[in-house]
Amino acid sequence: MKIVIVGASGTMGSYLSNAFEKEHEVIRTDRNGADVKVDITSTEAIENMYGRIGAFDALICTAGPSFVGPWKNLNDKSFRNGVEGKMMGQINLVLIGQHYINPKGSFTLITGALAHEPQKNFANASAVNAAVEGFVRAAAIELENSIRINAVSPTVIENSPQYFPFFPGEMPVTMKQLEYGFRKSVFGANTGQIITPH
Amino acid sequence: MKIVIVGASGTMGSYLSNAFEKEHEVIRTDRNGADVKVDITSTEAIENMYGRIGAFDALICTAGPSFVGPWKNLNDKSFRNGVEGKMMGQINLVLIGQHYINPKGSFTLITGALAHEPQKNFANASAVNAAVEGFVRAAAIELENSIRINAVSPTVIENSPQYFPFFPGEMPVTMKQLEYGFRKSVFGANTGQIITPH
Repeated sequence: MKIVIVGASGTMGSYLSNAFEKEHEVIRTDRNGADVKVDITSTEAIENMYGRIGAFDALICTAGPSFVGPWKNLNDKSFRNGVEGKMMGQINLVLIGQHYINPKGSFTLITGALAHEPQKNFANASAVNAAVEGFVRAAAIELENSIRINAVSPTVIENSPQYFPFFPGEMPVTMKQLEYGFRKSVFGANTGQIITPH
Repeated sequence: MKIVIVGASGTMGSYLSNAFEKEHEVIRTDRNGADVKVDITSTEAIENMYGRIGAFDALICTAGPSFVGPWKNLNDKSFRNGVEGKMMGQINLVLIGQHYINPKGSFTLITGALAHEPQKNFANASAVNAAVEGFVRAAAIELENSIRINAVSPTVIENSPQYFPFFPGEMPVTMKQLEYGFRKSVFGANTGQIITPH
């Protein structure tokens, strides 16, 4: 299977790339250019990425910038970090990528527990995570050629201990659990699902 | 109670304005200028609106433009209808309005069943409805001075029969049920809730 991983040099993306490339052709993409360079806040950059990669079977996105910080600093401008990044970035990966992906292919996006279980400093992520989840459910009934779409929604992950203090009461998800969440989407048959790795 | 109703000349907004003004001071606002003119896609227009209205006790928003149409016409540009309108428009009403609202005041935003139960042609609304719901949950734990925030999430409403064919299987919500959903938010004590009128 030819699998495109967006955000491949991040904590999640590098783990997943290493895990999946044992059995599959993995195309690593990233803002700073792993195999292929892409800034997902630019529709032109997304088009260029797909043009270079050509047809593929699965896309996994682990890239999702959003604004993290005190509520008093949240305004129209700072809110755009998540809107352009984790929300429209991922949505545009699908809206554009549907014209490049093989029939029966799949898109797997990243959201997060904050969509339903907020924590202080992360209102931007709560909104854009939820947006992606709403989009996934809707896109699942619209995509043609048996193309599937799901999201994986982890809480804080074990390899990002710097975030633990901001997530009281959240049991970190292991990298292996995270990997299996993505496996369920990519190699399973579900569509329109929000997969909680545990 | 001084209640600001945004989108006051729309189907929902006019019904709610008429219902609430029997016992409260209602400020009708709208893009075309009821009592006060506001285009919620402009942060400057929102600031101007609040400046004119001054302190208030509750804000109800029933204004929520989004793109409705075939999936093939959904792209980065058309998606912005909902992002700028129903999503950022409502979020900015809160981020700016928190500096004008009285202590113990409330914000009540509008989302919709599409967030969780998609229908064809409405993927934009599914995403932005869900975004507003995620924001509401997060804002509820951040707002100070006992300010509350909720969303009302109806399915198709009885006074908009032109939408019935697009919502197979959805029992239309009555205007009275809708009104009571908003009453629960404005006059109750809940915060961070998504209220489904029924």
